[in-house]
Amino acid sequence: MTDVTRNWEEFNSTEVSAKIPFFTKDGRLYDCLFAQQFDRALLDRLFTLANKLRATAQTKEGADFLLSLLSHKRAMLYFVQPSTRTFLSFQNACHLLGLKTSEIRDTNTSSEIKGESPEDSVRTFSSYVDLIIMRHPVPGFVEKTAWVMNRAKRPVPVISGGSGKDQHPTQALLDVYTLDSQLEGGVDGKTIVMVGDLKRGRTVRSLSYLMKNYKRVKLYFVSPPQLRMEKDILTFLSKHTIPYRETDDLGSVMREADAIYMTRIQDEHDVAGESRKVDYSKFQFRAEHLAVIKKTCIIMHPLPRREEIEVEVDEDDRAVYWRQERNGMWVRAALIAHLFSVEDEILGRK
Amino acid sequence: MTDVTRNWEEFNSTEVSAKIPFFTKDGRLYDCLFAQQFDRALLDRLFTLANKLRATAQTKEGADFLLSLLSHKRAMLYFVQPSTRTFLSFQNACHLLGLKTSEIRDTNTSSEIKGESPEDSVRTFSSYVDLIIMRHPVPGFVEKTAWVMNRAKRPVPVISGGSGKDQHPTQALLDVYTLDSQLEGGVDGKTIVMVGDLKRGRTVRSLSYLMKNYKRVKLYFVSPPQLRMEKDILTFLSKHTIPYRETDDLGSVMREADAIYMTRIQDEHDVAGESRKVDYSKFQFRAEHLAVIKKTCIIMHPLPRREEIEVEVDEDDRAVYWRQERNGMWVRAALIAHLFSVEDEILGRK
Amino acid sequence: MTDVTRNWEEFNSTEVSAKIPFFTKDGRLYDCLFAQQFDRALLDRLFTLANKLRATAQTKEGADFLLSLLSHKRAMLYFVQPSTRTFLSFQNACHLLGLKTSEIRDTNTSSEIKGESPEDSVRTFSSYVDLIIMRHPVPGFVEKTAWVMNRAKRPVPVISGGSGKDQHPTQALLDVYTLDSQLEGGVDGKTIVMVGDLKRGRTVRSLSYLMKNYKRVKLYFVSPPQLRMEKDILTFLSKHTIPYRETDDLGSVMREADAIYMTRIQDEHDVAGESRKVDYSKFQFRAEHLAVIKKTCIIMHPLPRREEIEVEVDEDDRAVYWRQERNGMWVRAALIAHLFSVEDEILGRK
Repeated sequence: MTDVTRNWEEFNSTEVSAKIPFFTKDGRLYDCLFAQQFDRALLDRLFTLANKLRATAQTKEGADFLLSLLSHKRAMLYFVQPSTRTFLSFQNACHLLGLKTSEIRDTNTSSEIKGESPEDSVRTFSSYVDLIIMRHPVPGFVEKTAWVMNRAKRPVPVISGGSGKDQHPTQALLDVYTLDSQLEGGVDGKTIVMVGDLKRGRTVRSLSYLMKNYKRVKLYFVSPPQLRMEKDILTFLSKHTIPYRETDDLGSVMREADAIYMTRIQDEHDVAGESRKVDYSKFQFRAEHLAVIKKTCIIMHPLPRREEIEVEVDEDDRAVYWRQERNGMWVRAALIAHLFSVEDEILGRK
Repeated sequence: MTDVTRNWEEFNSTEVSAKIPFFTKDGRLYDCLFAQQFDRALLDRLFTLANKLRATAQTKEGADFLLSLLSHKRAMLYFVQPSTRTFLSFQNACHLLGLKTSEIRDTNTSSEIKGESPEDSVRTFSSYVDLIIMRHPVPGFVEKTAWVMNRAKRPVPVISGGSGKDQHPTQALLDVYTLDSQLEGGVDGKTIVMVGDLKRGRTVRSLSYLMKNYKRVKLYFVSPPQLRMEKDILTFLSKHTIPYRETDDLGSVMREADAIYMTRIQDEHDVAGESRKVDYSKFQFRAEHLAVIKKTCIIMHPLPRREEIEVEVDEDDRAVYWRQERNGMWVRAALIAHLFSVEDEILGRK
Repeated sequence: MTDVTRNWEEFNSTEVSAKIPFFTKDGRLYDCLFAQQFDRALLDRLFTLANKLRATAQTKEGADFLLSLLSHKRAMLYFVQPSTRTFLSFQNACHLLGLKTSEIRDTNTSSEIKGESPEDSVRTFSSYVDLIIMRHPVPGFVEKTAWVMNRAKRPVPVISGGSGKDQHPTQALLDVYTLDSQLEGGVDGKTIVMVGDLKRGRTVRSLSYLMKNYKRVKLYFVSPPQLRMEKDILTFLSKHTIPYRETDDLGSVMREADAIYMTRIQDEHDVAGESRKVDYSKFQFRAEHLAVIKKTCIIMHPLPRREEIEVEVDEDDRAVYWRQERNGMWVRAALIAHLFSVEDEILGRK
């Protein structure tokens, strides 16, 4: 039997589910790389923790307590792909827990000019810190970093802040956390409507996957015909007996929704300007819709938005996308607290 | 009556004096946007606070006490216009009081590429922090941000670090603070000589405005004929019966000065190289002048300087421009302490 | 007699040994600019301190103690020459001791556009901080900054993070620290083999110089004929009766080595692509060599590496280059602790 921990190519070619144990230590995440690492128990644990963090930070005493927890740790934010919002969210999550941060936001360093391998660069930069938070445009690069750092004499945990086109596990986490904390009774039994460019939207894909952790959830996929949810997700949902329906008529399903998840058109992925042919006006949430949806229905958006939600909607209490943004910070702080095993100190505080 | 808090265009078209209450809460500044927000009582308060901050920071115990005051707060420095000195001054003011900082110094982020409105970007970035310090090249942008953030479900105070060509309230603050703290008996009754490009110098304009808060001040404006102080300021001074005199002969007024405020020629505002025709050598402070001015006369400069002050002058005790620079940090820290209502804790410390 | 403290050109033209007292105060370094400032007593002191820092930081209590030492200080990292690794090493060294950091990594600031002299810029930026750590491409610029700041009304110590082509004192420090801490019994009496581009490698030159502080050291210089160690170093070694031998045959000396210091070819200094003619394969450390060298022989490299050390070697316990990298942080923290006179508090902690 090949030892997958010895050879990256071998390791990389195995299925995600088989990789997960390698990124786990002593019953907790060691690295956070895939949304598939989150099961129901872990989600519940992280959300409880995020709630407690948020409550604790309300007072100066509480905030200072949080600052003391990881004051002895240092994190490196290695963000060579521009992403101000994810960067700031992580950086402030670190600051909340007292971690000092340093950052790399540009690969155009003397080392690379001098011919150093990317693996050596990361390993060098890791020398000074206790945690790496990494966003990288090359698919698999963050995972490889975690694999390398896991095998180093001085291992350092790695959290993905987005790797290539597919994996952005903490975005999925904050979306589910927002559903869980904003919906009365949590996610179980709720009807969630996802709207927009479902074909190319990373967030709606991850969110759909994570629904397997919840009971009796019903999904509506509202999109232009050209931008329907991909088959792999639909197959996955069928396999897990999660009911879904596809439509291009937002009005027809809006009334039923407990949560409406709006997304923008992802035209940066266009090959030949195909988005321009899409009439996206039907996939917009307008102020007039506020009178139609349930009083308890929340409106989400991963941001940035363009025209998908009218600015007037922002003032309605059901518009939770700004809170969702801020939730990213709380749930990322919860994740970091989990990795460093300070959960009990937080949860145990009176 | 139109509710000016509801519509930005309406709000924006009102006079500054009418806007001020909107940026004030519970009798203190909530946002700091205009030099007009500073009255004598507030100036005195902030300067007393700045003095106490400076004295307190002298000892390790004092400095650690200051660090504890706002350790639970986080600030975002949103500086999309390059300004290293103002940036560093604010950042270190934050660090003095224990605030953690994150920064945006480049607007070329993925969000804007993705078509997000500037208001949405700012609001997103504000999600993670308790204070926004912003410098922006577009006139009115900082004010609009404060207006938006004031109306948000989670309001966040905004301090201007310079907005467009006209407003840079904390620069005015540090200039008056330097006068107040370096002149025996404060600003009342003093003779202040402003020298150089008075037409286009933002600092001398603001400083002149703020003189209305002081009694029996006399101003001399020394400039080339082409670069005289603008009429609006002269009218303002007359209206407030502040005596002033214009001249192009520095030597003739130097002896009388309690403070000489030197400025460089602002040729970046030239339309057709008109500065090149100006003989600026007459508007220079040279080492030989040190023997002429009063023993108590201070020499100020907002920096950066070119040739307006000979380097030899730096060693004279009356040259206070480096201290003036450092005063920016103290008075900005005082302002932040004021916004967050920790004045009494600072002033009350033995 | 000319007062060298009064005129930079005069000062600059004196010998390094004559300059050293100017950068020393009360029997300790005030500025760190030259490897020549390190004598044996100081090296031993800094290494003892670095060891204690490393041990103390192992526990949360220890790390929090270190954080408290310089919490009241602020450092500016002025790195206008790209150098991510040195930057991060210093930044995290600061963070270890509780110093807050601000940074300048780009000279393209508004001030310089506005015609400010580099000396004024540095002095301005120094206004806000208690320590300047500077890397600059212009030879002598860091030294001049220290000279200017030493004479200012508010002096601020300066540490060089690399100045021009020759001086990089903390790199030399970390190399010797690694030898000292990894070799049983320290550096005295050891055989050190330096391999590669010895002609243009700044680190091997400095390391050779510093060997004068140790007893009975023997050096082997292994290089291509075109890239032999320069005469000035060989003369220096002869003068201090440090035995050395030059060869181009790594295999012939490998067995004897207590430390092998590998370096890459410095082709960025090529004038006409002369490196391309060099067969560098003979100056590579390969996995097969691990069986040949002593069981206690350490393998060092200043990094970044290219092909000089096979990646397979990394897993051997004698490969200490990653530890060497991390040692940079510890020894820089020790240096900062020394400058700020908190050594006794660290060494005295139980």
